[in-house]
Amino acid sequence: MQNKTILLASRPTGTPSAENFRFETTETLPLTADHVLLKTRYVSVDPYMRGRMNEGKSYVAPFEVGQPIAGGVVAEVVESQLDTLPIGSLVVGNLPWQQYILSDGKGLQQIPADQAPPSYYLGLLGMPGLTAYFGLLDICQPKPGETVVVSGAAGAVGLVVGQLAKIKGARVIGTAGSDEKVAYLKQLGFDEAINYKTANIPEALAAAAPNGVDCYFDNVGGAITDAVYDLLNKHARIALCGQISSYNDAQAPVGPRPEGKLLKTSTKLQGFIVSDYYTQWPEGTRQLTEWYQQGKLQFEETVTEGFDQIPTAFLGLFKGENTGKAIVKVA
Amino acid sequence: MQNKTILLASRPTGTPSAENFRFETTETLPLTADHVLLKTRYVSVDPYMRGRMNEGKSYVAPFEVGQPIAGGVVAEVVESQLDTLPIGSLVVGNLPWQQYILSDGKGLQQIPADQAPPSYYLGLLGMPGLTAYFGLLDICQPKPGETVVVSGAAGAVGLVVGQLAKIKGARVIGTAGSDEKVAYLKQLGFDEAINYKTANIPEALAAAAPNGVDCYFDNVGGAITDAVYDLLNKHARIALCGQISSYNDAQAPVGPRPEGKLLKTSTKLQGFIVSDYYTQWPEGTRQLTEWYQQGKLQFEETVTEGFDQIPTAFLGLFKGENTGKAIVKVA
Repeated sequence: MQNKTILLASRPTGTPSAENFRFETTETLPLTADHVLLKTRYVSVDPYMRGRMNEGKSYVAPFEVGQPIAGGVVAEVVESQLDTLPIGSLVVGNLPWQQYILSDGKGLQQIPADQAPPSYYLGLLGMPGLTAYFGLLDICQPKPGETVVVSGAAGAVGLVVGQLAKIKGARVIGTAGSDEKVAYLKQLGFDEAINYKTANIPEALAAAAPNGVDCYFDNVGGAITDAVYDLLNKHARIALCGQISSYNDAQAPVGPRPEGKLLKTSTKLQGFIVSDYYTQWPEGTRQLTEWYQQGKLQFEETVTEGFDQIPTAFLGLFKGENTGKAIVKVA
Repeated sequence: MQNKTILLASRPTGTPSAENFRFETTETLPLTADHVLLKTRYVSVDPYMRGRMNEGKSYVAPFEVGQPIAGGVVAEVVESQLDTLPIGSLVVGNLPWQQYILSDGKGLQQIPADQAPPSYYLGLLGMPGLTAYFGLLDICQPKPGETVVVSGAAGAVGLVVGQLAKIKGARVIGTAGSDEKVAYLKQLGFDEAINYKTANIPEALAAAAPNGVDCYFDNVGGAITDAVYDLLNKHARIALCGQISSYNDAQAPVGPRPEGKLLKTSTKLQGFIVSDYYTQWPEGTRQLTEWYQQGKLQFEETVTEGFDQIPTAFLGLFKGENTGKAIVKVA
C-alpha cells in the first residue's frame, strides 16, 4: 500500500514556506507482532511547531532535516496485533505526518466514543484546551470581577482561555486579527474584543480595561504585550504561553524592557508548556469534557481537507487564516 | 532646639543631584501628650528611594516636592510621654530625614538590646535583609547544587542573598562593579564573582555557570540580566527585586525581548517588594537574627558621618560607592 510522508526538507530562515517540506512516498511496512497499523484521520497544525523547525534547544526537541515532521494526530486502528487496541479504535498521539503509521501503541491515548467529535482531542479536549486550562486556572487564577486579557483570542488556545475566564466570573478582553474574529469573540461571550490590526492597541486596551489588567494570557507577544504591561494591576499574573508575533523573526526581537513594570506591580510572569502539567492532564480533560457537555464551552475549527494540504494549513497559521483550531482532515 | 530637615526641592530628570534636595532649619516643636521625641541616630539611603522622587505611581507613593524625604531611620527616644517607649529606647521606622522627630509611636518597632548593632536593623535585620530572605527563599527556593546568580551582589540585599543561597547548598555567582567588591564577595564565600565593568558579561557568566542558571536574584537589570536570560535552565526562578541600572534613565529602557527565553524554559519571573511579605516579617527577622548569631551570616556597612551628608550618601548609591549597606551616622 502506498504511503505518503512529509519530511523537513530544510530549516526555514524567517517565515517558513512550502520549500521547507518534502513529500516522500514509500510502501507501508507489513504489520509485526505487538503493533498496530494506524490510518491517519486528522492532523493538527500548531504554532509551537515553528520552533521545532529551528536548530538548537527550544522547549521541545527540534525536528531533524530529512526526517518526518510529527505532531498531534488522530488516527484509526486499521490492522491490529495488540489486544488493547482493536480494529476500529480511535487514538490520539504525537505521530508523524504520514498516511499510514506503524505503532507499538506506546504514547497513544484511546479516544472515548460519543463524548465529542474525534478531532476535538486535538483541540478543546487535547493539547490546546489543556494549555488554556492550566495556564489560566493554575498560573493566572482569575477571581470574579477581575480583568483578564488574552492575546490570540480567536486561536485554539485563546478561545478556550476566554470562556474559562468567563466561567470563573472575570471580565474578558480578547485581541484578534480581523473584524470577523472580533465578532466571533463577542458572540462567544467575550466582554470586549479588539482587532489589533486596525486599532490603536494601547488606547483600545486602556479603554477596554478601565480597572487595569489582573491576568494576561499571552499567545502573541510584541506590541500587544507592551500595551498590557502598562495596564497591570498590583499582583497581576501573566501566563506566558506563546510568542507567535516573533516566531518567524530572523533576528532576536527588541522592545521596551518590561522588568521595571513587572517590578513595581509585583507581577508574576510564568512561562509554561502544557507538558509541565503532564500528571494533571486526566483531571484537566475530565473537567473540560464536563463543561463541554454542559454547554459551558464552545469550540471552533478551521478544517482543511487532504493530506497534501498539511504544509499549506501550517503556513496559514502565520497569516492568521484560522479561527479556532487549525485541523487537516486527511481521511 | 534647632532642627534640620531635608526636603525634596525638585524632581530629578535622569541622575539626581544635590540640587534636588533642600535643607530647612526649624525649632523643634514641644512634646505633646502620648508622643515621643526621637533623636535620629542612623539614616538609611536605598536605591528604591530614587523611584519615589519621580511623579506617578511606583510601588511606593512618590515623595512630594517641598515635603521631607523619608525612609528607614534608627532613632533614640530622648523625651517620652508614652509608657511603651521609655527614654533611651532605640526604635526603627519609616521616618523623615530630620534630626529630631516628634512621633506618636505608631509604626515604630523597638530594637532589642544586644542582639546586633542598632544600624543592622536598617540592613541585615531590616528591609534589605528581609528583601533577600523572602525573594530568595520564597520566590527562588534554591535547591542544593543548583546555580544562583545575584546581581548587585555587594549591595546590602545582594550580599545577604548570596550567603542565604550558600546556607541552602547552592553554587553562588555574584556580579559587582569593582575588583575590591569581587574580592569581598569571594571572601564571603561566593563561588564566583564577576566585575561587570571589566568582564565580557555573557562570556564571564557562561564560564561561571557551566550547568546553567536555576535562580536569578536581580537587583540591577540591563546587560547582566540579558546575559542571564541566555543561561536559564528549565523551570528557572527569577526574583525581580530592583533595576538600578535604569533608575536614572530619562527614557524608557529598550533591550532584547525576554519573553521567548522565559517561555521555552518555563521560567517564573516574580516582581516583588518586601511589603508583599509584611505578615511574615517577624519570622524572617527571627531567622536572620538566629543565623547572624550563629555566625552563618556576615554583614557589611559603608558608613558616612553627619546629617548634612545624607544627600551625598544617597547620590553615591548610583556611583556604586557603597559595599554592603549605605548608612549615614547622624548622631
